[in-house]
Amino acid sequence: MDLSSMEALRAACTDFAGGDVASADAARARQAELVKPEGSLGRLEDIAVHMARWQRTLRPRLDNARIIVFAGSHGVTRNGVSPFPDEVNAQMLGGFRAGFAAICQLAEAFGARLEAIDCGVDEPTGDLASEPAMTEEGFLEAVRKGVNAVGGSEDILIFGDMGIGNTTAAAAVAAALFGGTGADWAGRGAGLDETGLARKAEVVDSALAFHGDALGDPLEALRRVGGREMAAIMGACLAARRHGVPVLLDGYIVCASVAPLYRLDRSALDHALAAHRSAEPGHRRVLEGLGLDPLLDLGMRLGEGSGAATALGLVRAALACHNGMATFAEAAVAGRKGDV
Amino acid sequence: MDLSSMEALRAACTDFAGGDVASADAARARQAELVKPEGSLGRLEDIAVHMARWQRTLRPRLDNARIIVFAGSHGVTRNGVSPFPDEVNAQMLGGFRAGFAAICQLAEAFGARLEAIDCGVDEPTGDLASEPAMTEEGFLEAVRKGVNAVGGSEDILIFGDMGIGNTTAAAAVAAALFGGTGADWAGRGAGLDETGLARKAEVVDSALAFHGDALGDPLEALRRVGGREMAAIMGACLAARRHGVPVLLDGYIVCASVAPLYRLDRSALDHALAAHRSAEPGHRRVLEGLGLDPLLDLGMRLGEGSGAATALGLVRAALACHNGMATFAEAAVAGRKGDV
Repeated sequence: MDLSSMEALRAACTDFAGGDVASADAARARQAELVKPEGSLGRLEDIAVHMARWQRTLRPRLDNARIIVFAGSHGVTRNGVSPFPDEVNAQMLGGFRAGFAAICQLAEAFGARLEAIDCGVDEPTGDLASEPAMTEEGFLEAVRKGVNAVGGSEDILIFGDMGIGNTTAAAAVAAALFGGTGADWAGRGAGLDETGLARKAEVVDSALAFHGDALGDPLEALRRVGGREMAAIMGACLAARRHGVPVLLDGYIVCASVAPLYRLDRSALDHALAAHRSAEPGHRRVLEGLGLDPLLDLGMRLGEGSGAATALGLVRAALACHNGMATFAEAAVAGRKGDV
Repeated sequence: MDLSSMEALRAACTDFAGGDVASADAARARQAELVKPEGSLGRLEDIAVHMARWQRTLRPRLDNARIIVFAGSHGVTRNGVSPFPDEVNAQMLGGFRAGFAAICQLAEAFGARLEAIDCGVDEPTGDLASEPAMTEEGFLEAVRKGVNAVGGSEDILIFGDMGIGNTTAAAAVAAALFGGTGADWAGRGAGLDETGLARKAEVVDSALAFHGDALGDPLEALRRVGGREMAAIMGACLAARRHGVPVLLDGYIVCASVAPLYRLDRSALDHALAAHRSAEPGHRRVLEGLGLDPLLDLGMRLGEGSGAATALGLVRAALACHNGMATFAEAAVAGRKGDV
C-alpha cells in the first residue's frame, strides 16, 4: 500500500474487495441445521456468519486473536480537558507491556495476544484548538505505524487507544465528520466535572472555528484535530480491511478514528463489528453515524480496547456453538413437525 | 431444608441471610484504586462487587462455575403450542450429556461444569390448560430435585431448561404472578407462526380461567401452570440463595420459574444477576417485574441456560480485571490532578 502522500493514502481508502459471500451463505445454512430452533442464538449467529465471511471459511477460528493498543500524547491537554496528567500515557504504555492494565487481564481471559505501540507518548501533538495536531508527514507516519502493525493473517483484530485528552480529539473529529458543536460531542471522559466539561466543549468549538472548511475532508479532519494513536488506529483498520481480517471496534476513540474511512467509502468498515456502546455519550452518535449496532452496552468508558476485548468472549461463544454443535441429522433429534 | 409439604416449602422461602456487605464494600474500594478512571469498567465493576458480596471475599473466584440443565415434558403440548414434538426433550437431554448441544459448547468455552437432570422427560405433566400440571407431591419432588442438585460451594451457578411447550407454561406462570392475559405473555417460542401464537395465547387464557383464584398463591401458580423443570429451577435457585451462591439467571423460562420466590420475599433473588434479555417478548416484562436489568441483549431465545452461559464470559472478564489489575500505587501511575 503506497502511503507516501495524503493523495496516495486517499487512493488506498477506496476500492475494497468484499468478504466471501459463499462462506457466509454456507455458515448461515449451517446455523439453520444446528440442533436448536432456527435463529435462536440471535446475534451469536450473526457473529459466526460475519467471521465466516471475512475468514473465508465455513468454520471460522479464534486461535490468533490479536489486540493492538496505540498510545499517543495530546497537546490539547494544556487547555485542561482531562483530570489526568500527560505522564500517564507513558506510564500506561509501560503498564500494557508489564501486564497490569485492564486490557492485559482481558486479553489473557479470552486468549488474545496483546501488543502496545508507542505513537509518541513523549512527543505531544499540536494543540488542535489552535494548530494542526499533526503535520502531513507526521500524520502519514502514524498511519503507516498502524498499517504495519497488522500482520494480515490474524483471526480477528482489536485496536485500543491510550492518550490523555483523546476524548477531546475524538469529539472534534466526530463533529468535523458528522456535524454539530462541541456540546454535542464532548463528554466527561476520564471524569471531568461540570466546569471541565463546558471547557472541553469550548475547546472543540475553538478547533472547529480555527480549522474551518479544511475539516470537510475526512483525512484532513483526522490530521488536524485527531491524534497520532488515532491515525494509527485508522491505518490498522484500513490494513485489516485490505487483508480481509475481521475487526471488533472498541469505543469512542476507536470509532472516531475509523470514521474517516467510512466517510471516504461506505463499505470500508464492512469487516468490522461494533463491540460495545461506551458510556461516553458521543459514542452513541458516532455508532449511529456509522450505522453500527453494538453487541454490548455495559457503561464501559476505559479505552485501551477494553470494550472490544470484553466482546471477544461473545465471539468465542459464537464460534464455539457454530463449530461444536451437532446438526439435527447428526444428533438424530427430531425437527419441526411442520408449521403449527 | 424441610420440603416435605407446601407449607414447609413456603417457610423455606423467607428469612434469608444477606450477602457479605463488608466484602462488597472492600471490593468497591478496590475498584476505585485500580489503574483506570473510577467507574470506567461500568457494569464489569458491579459484577465483581456482586461476586465479592456473595462469595464473601475481596477476591472472588470462578474456578467452580456450574451449569445445571433441568429437562421436563409438558402435557400442554397436546394443544399445539410448539412446532417441535415432545420426543425432543429426551433427545436433547441425551445431547446435553453427549456434548452436542449449544450449552455444552458454551460451558466448555467458559470453563463451566455442565450437568443435565431428568425431571421426567418421559412423563409429561398434566395439561395446564385444564388440570394442574403437577400434584403437590409431584411438585415438591421436582423442587427437591433442584434443591439437591446444588452443592453449595459453587463459585457461581447457572440454571438451564429444556421442555417443549415450556414457554407456554412460563407465560401462564408470568400472567398468574404479574397479571395480564395470554396475549401479553405468549411469544413465538421455538418458532410458532401467527396462528400458533394466537392458539398459545388462548391456551394461557384457558389456564387462567380454569385455575382462577388458586393462582394468587405464587407456589400454587408454579405447581398448577408451570412444569417439573421449572419447579426444579425454583428449588435450585432457592438452595443457591440459602447457601449464598451467586446465580446468573437465564431467559424467560428460568426467570418465570424463580419469580415465585421474589413474590414471596423481595430479597429472594438478591444473589442473582440477570444474564440477558431474551427475544421472547414476555421475558422483558418478567425482568421488569423482578426489577432486574440484564447484562446482555443479543436476541437469544434458545433456553438450556445458553444466555446465562454466554454472560459467564462477562463474569470472567470482570473478575480478571478485578483480581489482576494493579492499583495506581502498585503501578506507580499518576492519579487525578485534582478536579478540573
